[in-house]
Amino acid sequence: MEFLDELRDLKVQVKYSAIIENVEVFNKIVIAGMGGSGIAGKIFSELYSGVPIVNVDDYRIPDFVDSSTLFIPMSYSGNTEEVLSATAQALKKGAEVVAFTSGGRLSEISKRVIKLPKGLQPRSSLGYMLLPLIRTFLDPQEEILDNAAGLLDEMDGDNSYIREEAEHIYREKAIPVIYGFSPYRNVAYRWRTQFNENSKVLAASSYFPELDHNEIVPLPSTYRSEIFRFYTFDCDMPEAIRKRIDATESVGGIKINRIEARGKSVIERLFYLIHYGDYLSYHLSIVRGKDPRDVTPIEKLKKMIS
Amino acid sequence: MEFLDELRDLKVQVKYSAIIENVEVFNKIVIAGMGGSGIAGKIFSELYSGVPIVNVDDYRIPDFVDSSTLFIPMSYSGNTEEVLSATAQALKKGAEVVAFTSGGRLSEISKRVIKLPKGLQPRSSLGYMLLPLIRTFLDPQEEILDNAAGLLDEMDGDNSYIREEAEHIYREKAIPVIYGFSPYRNVAYRWRTQFNENSKVLAASSYFPELDHNEIVPLPSTYRSEIFRFYTFDCDMPEAIRKRIDATESVGGIKINRIEARGKSVIERLFYLIHYGDYLSYHLSIVRGKDPRDVTPIEKLKKMIS
Repeated sequence: MEFLDELRDLKVQVKYSAIIENVEVFNKIVIAGMGGSGIAGKIFSELYSGVPIVNVDDYRIPDFVDSSTLFIPMSYSGNTEEVLSATAQALKKGAEVVAFTSGGRLSEISKRVIKLPKGLQPRSSLGYMLLPLIRTFLDPQEEILDNAAGLLDEMDGDNSYIREEAEHIYREKAIPVIYGFSPYRNVAYRWRTQFNENSKVLAASSYFPELDHNEIVPLPSTYRSEIFRFYTFDCDMPEAIRKRIDATESVGGIKINRIEARGKSVIERLFYLIHYGDYLSYHLSIVRGKDPRDVTPIEKLKKMIS
Repeated sequence: MEFLDELRDLKVQVKYSAIIENVEVFNKIVIAGMGGSGIAGKIFSELYSGVPIVNVDDYRIPDFVDSSTLFIPMSYSGNTEEVLSATAQALKKGAEVVAFTSGGRLSEISKRVIKLPKGLQPRSSLGYMLLPLIRTFLDPQEEILDNAAGLLDEMDGDNSYIREEAEHIYREKAIPVIYGFSPYRNVAYRWRTQFNENSKVLAASSYFPELDHNEIVPLPSTYRSEIFRFYTFDCDMPEAIRKRIDATESVGGIKINRIEARGKSVIERLFYLIHYGDYLSYHLSIVRGKDPRDVTPIEKLKKMIS
């Protein structure tokens, strides 16, 4: 599949109908996943907090994992070594394991599996990984998902305004810095990792209000401040956060580019912002003459450590 | 107090003897804190996982908070608006609130308070905030804390080797990038925020193994890669992480400076590494001709939004 076709698949993915059955009996959730297969759990943990959710992006699981724990390992390939290690520990402790994967070893060791369609890069399967969580725990109206699909389809049709933004980044050879805020902290992180993997540029992310307690200090007086280009999102800000964004611009002496999300609900706006970052990083890869699909360093590293 | 005296206070703080009584009855912990008053909870959540710990650095608390939740608001001043907002919600939900503070409004609204000595910057009170958590949940031998104090005392006596590293950063006008790994992910974040507040330079942090799934991709081919100076820690690495650090250097074509921690236990090494970052950011402020104590942008912002 061409990389652009992978991006265009998101509008299909937001209609993915799998759900996890019988979740009521668990009093905590652990979601294990790395990189493109870990971002869904991180984003979801900002949308739902009915029980404690702990994200694991490492080899080891927390001590508290027990038979009352819903343990969700996510690995698109099913062969991510950290996730396999974590899942083996969770099984040993009697946790209920429901794996999200397209196959691999993970689908063999897990009793319950949410099967994901094959053929994508892990980072292009975010919708497939996020939807079963959203459907199971948030139970959105079908209309909301239809609308989200519509917004994504529109963006697939015309995203030239996003290419202009990418050209701007490239002209400045800017390092993108994305400032998130709840429930979009991990959308900022997603943008950062998409800049990394698609555009092959380093990027940074942090979030309000925490960054106003430390990262704001160097803004007016640091060296090399001219190389950063700052972004945040324009939607769902509580009044206190809106004030902080304005004040951070003013005190920091920086311009924070605000990406206005379209959509009538948080779920629609969430996918709009995710997709915006997909296209922004995609266009930046193209203007830089880089293949957005290529992640040779990850493959080299995997070989080297195996 | 001179800023250097504040740094030197850490060896006193690691002997702080306060503990939280009767924690056995709670099945989850929420720790709320911002910036220099939030880092203790973040570091602690890597050391203990007997029950789920959720860190809150925002105005709102998770839905799951209830009367079985130990809620620990940390605010050195006792007047941090995010923490006061979060604490009011926790009280309303019947959580057991044990505040860590030197006074302020927080000490008035909380029934149980761990009182912290006054006179420090919040970021210089990390030991006071971390020790009651460590003593309560990890119950370390007194000898370990004595040894930690001894190591910190030695560093207070001679830290010229750390000044050299700071001079190196300044010569290159480098942006420090700190790669952590468990249980030192948030020590990397602490370094980043100390670079922000003390040195007035932007810094980045991320962690193994997650960064090998995204951030490694741009390293060999990004623009502006020469401006970063990479750090990691040399202690307590599982073999898999050690391999990854080596492979990341090799595949990424970068040098990762490894800071070897001294100390016979994780707690000693933890404080050694924290203190190393304190001095590194302190010396960088001095070679840059900046006052390490000054956090005018934070104060300006607070005025602007109040």
